[in-house]
Formats: sequence, C-alpha cells, structure tokens
Amino acid sequence: MGRSRTQNPPARAAYHHGNLREALLEAGLAHLEKSGDQALSLRELARQTGVAANAVYRHFASKERLLVALAAEGFRRLGAAQHRAMRDARDPIQAMKLSGLAYIRFARANPALFRLMFDRFANSQRDPELAQAVRESFEQLCAAVAAASKLGTADPRVSVRAIHALALVHGLSHLHLDGQLADWVGDADALTESVLQYASQLRASTKSG
Amino acid sequence: MGRSRTQNPPARAAYHHGNLREALLEAGLAHLEKSGDQALSLRELARQTGVAANAVYRHFASKERLLVALAAEGFRRLGAAQHRAMRDARDPIQAMKLSGLAYIRFARANPALFRLMFDRFANSQRDPELAQAVRESFEQLCAAVAAASKLGTADPRVSVRAIHALALVHGLSHLHLDGQLADWVGDADALTESVLQYASQLRASTKSG
Repeated sequence: MGRSRTQNPPARAAYHHGNLREALLEAGLAHLEKSGDQALSLRELARQTGVAANAVYRHFASKERLLVALAAEGFRRLGAAQHRAMRDARDPIQAMKLSGLAYIRFARANPALFRLMFDRFANSQRDPELAQAVRESFEQLCAAVAAASKLGTADPRVSVRAIHALALVHGLSHLHLDGQLADWVGDADALTESVLQYASQLRASTKSG
Repeated sequence: MGRSRTQNPPARAAYHHGNLREALLEAGLAHLEKSGDQALSLRELARQTGVAANAVYRHFASKERLLVALAAEGFRRLGAAQHRAMRDARDPIQAMKLSGLAYIRFARANPALFRLMFDRFANSQRDPELAQAVRESFEQLCAAVAAASKLGTADPRVSVRAIHALALVHGLSHLHLDGQLADWVGDADALTESVLQYASQLRASTKSG
C-alpha cells in the first residue's frame, strides 16, 4: 500500500475483485503444471497477470494460502468433470464407471494439481473453502454410490462402498502417474476400463456387504 | 582407494561384503523414515555404520543407486509381510484380505519407503534388482488372485482382478497416508477392514468379469 505502482496499476490490471482472484487461480494452475509448486511465487504470478504484487497479496496472504485455494479449485474442477461424465450414462451403474474414468483422466491431465490436492487434504479442516470443496466432492460420490446400489444415502453400507470406489480410482490414478500400469500391460487405458467394468459388474451383482 | 582410512578402517567396520551391504540398507531405511530421502547422504551413512566412505561407494556408486536399492528392499519386505499375513488365512479369499491389510499396514508403518518405492518404480526396468523385486511382488499377487478366483494364472481375468486388488489397497494406503480416512470416519481401521471385507465378498460371489 502507498507504493506508486499500486496506485497506478498497469492497464491489464482492470480486474474486478472476483475476476482477479479467478485470473490468479488460472495462472497459478498453469504455473503449477508447468513448473511444480516449489517454483510457484506470488510475485511472479503478479507479473504474469499484469498486476501489482500488493493486489495479489489482497487475495492470497501467502504462497501457502494460494496453494490451498488451488487445491480447493482442483476439487471443484474434479467434481465438475465427474458430474459432466455421469450425464452421459444410461444407468447409475454406468454413471459410477464414467465418473471413475473421469477421475483418473483428471489425475493424468493435472498430475501436479492432483498431488497438491491430496497433499493439502490432511489440513483441509483448517480452511473453510477447501473443507467445503472436499465435502461436496464426497457427497457427490456418496449420492452416485447410493443410486448405483439402490440404497438410501444414510445407509452405512454407502460409505463403505464409496470408500471402495474412491480408493479404487485413487489407486489407479497413482499407478498411472507412477508409470506402473504402462509397465505391466500393453494398453493401460484398456486395462483401466476393464478394472472399472469388473467393479461395475460387482456392484450390480452384489446385494449385501 | 589408496587413502589411509580405507586401508585402516575403524574397528566396527569388520563387515563381510554382503553383511556391509545389508547393514547399509538397514541404516538407510532407518534414516529414510527419520529424515526423508532429501537428507540421506552416503557419507553420513558411512559415519553411522562406522566404515569409510569408500567402503560405502563400493556398494552404492551414488545416492541414487542406494535409493533404488532401498526401493527394491522395500518391495521384498512388503512381499514378505504379505506372505506372512496370508499364512494365517483359512481360505484363499481371506488370504487376499489379510494380504491387503498387510499392504496397508506396511505403507502406514513405512511412509517414506512406500513413497520411494513407487517413485522409483517408473524407472524400475533400468535396474535388474528392482525389476526383479517388482516382478516377484506382482507374481505373488497374481497367484493369490488366481487362487481366490479359482482361475488359472494365465487366465486374462487374473490380471484385471489383480490390478483391481492392487489399486484398491494402493488407494487405501494413499488415503491413509494423506490423512483422509481419519477425516471422514471415526475409525479408519474399521472402515479399511469393512472395505476389504466388501471386496472379499464380491470376489467370492462373482464368477465372471
């Protein structure tokens, strides 16, 4: 505050409050995938977005605050991608499979963001925005599982099956990111599809558990 | 070579060739869990083991060679832990569950080693020792899956089910390590058990897929 650059921001800085936050998140996500979270800097982000560093600090008090906000944005985008994928399903069982494929595709397309999301997860309760993004993501999963299992969302079997579904696609994502599936099989995409199809058949055929 | 310390190693350095390698791996594993792979140094390892640095370099030409050897040792220990767990099973279905629990327990007890194993996995084909440890680990899994599914090990359904089982426990391990299960449920251990029990029932009940 009080510096001349803040009072006379460059022409590109004609952002409304919300717009600038979105632009900073967008630039942060691009930077994260390109160079990793170590190299990310608020000053560099300000330079790339064409605004003064102080304007960035008004949205994110520290680099860590930005990383947590990026993690929350990641959970929202992952949820949206799964939601889009499920719209094309012919039934709730296939919806679970398409949602799982979208999860794995998201992890492979955004590996640095995916790792950041789960790295910051442990402390998510400290940040209301991240906590809400995570909660909504889990509620969406439970709703899909309840529909596929023909169970009410309050049924205790739903959370067991939801964690089963989550762990499966989470594990497949990590195996993909670590290059393992490519080592063991010729066609990692076909294998992923087969594994999710196997889980789908199991969901459809099992009434208890 | 040719340095006086190498010719006059300290008293504790009375290792045979194989013994010293084992002692260095043991010290390396302890150091890894305590301080992470960044802080690991061959010179420090030599000091802790009470031998000259040159003696260490004869076994591991670089820090990266040591890390790859630690990853291979990790796969062997994980396989041994799963093998021990399966001995107590009353049938092949329960053996899969006990093996899965042993996998998750191993990951939680050795988080730095677990992450290192899968971090180095992508390049495992370059190192014969690591490649063999990984191959044996996967063969052990496929044998257990084939027994539980009453299928021959060459049946193509075995690899699909093996990846399903692996991804499930791998995902659960990561969710545990990232502190997620503790956030969502009161008793993460009971939930893990329920999820593996659910997968067990599915394995038992499904004939196709």
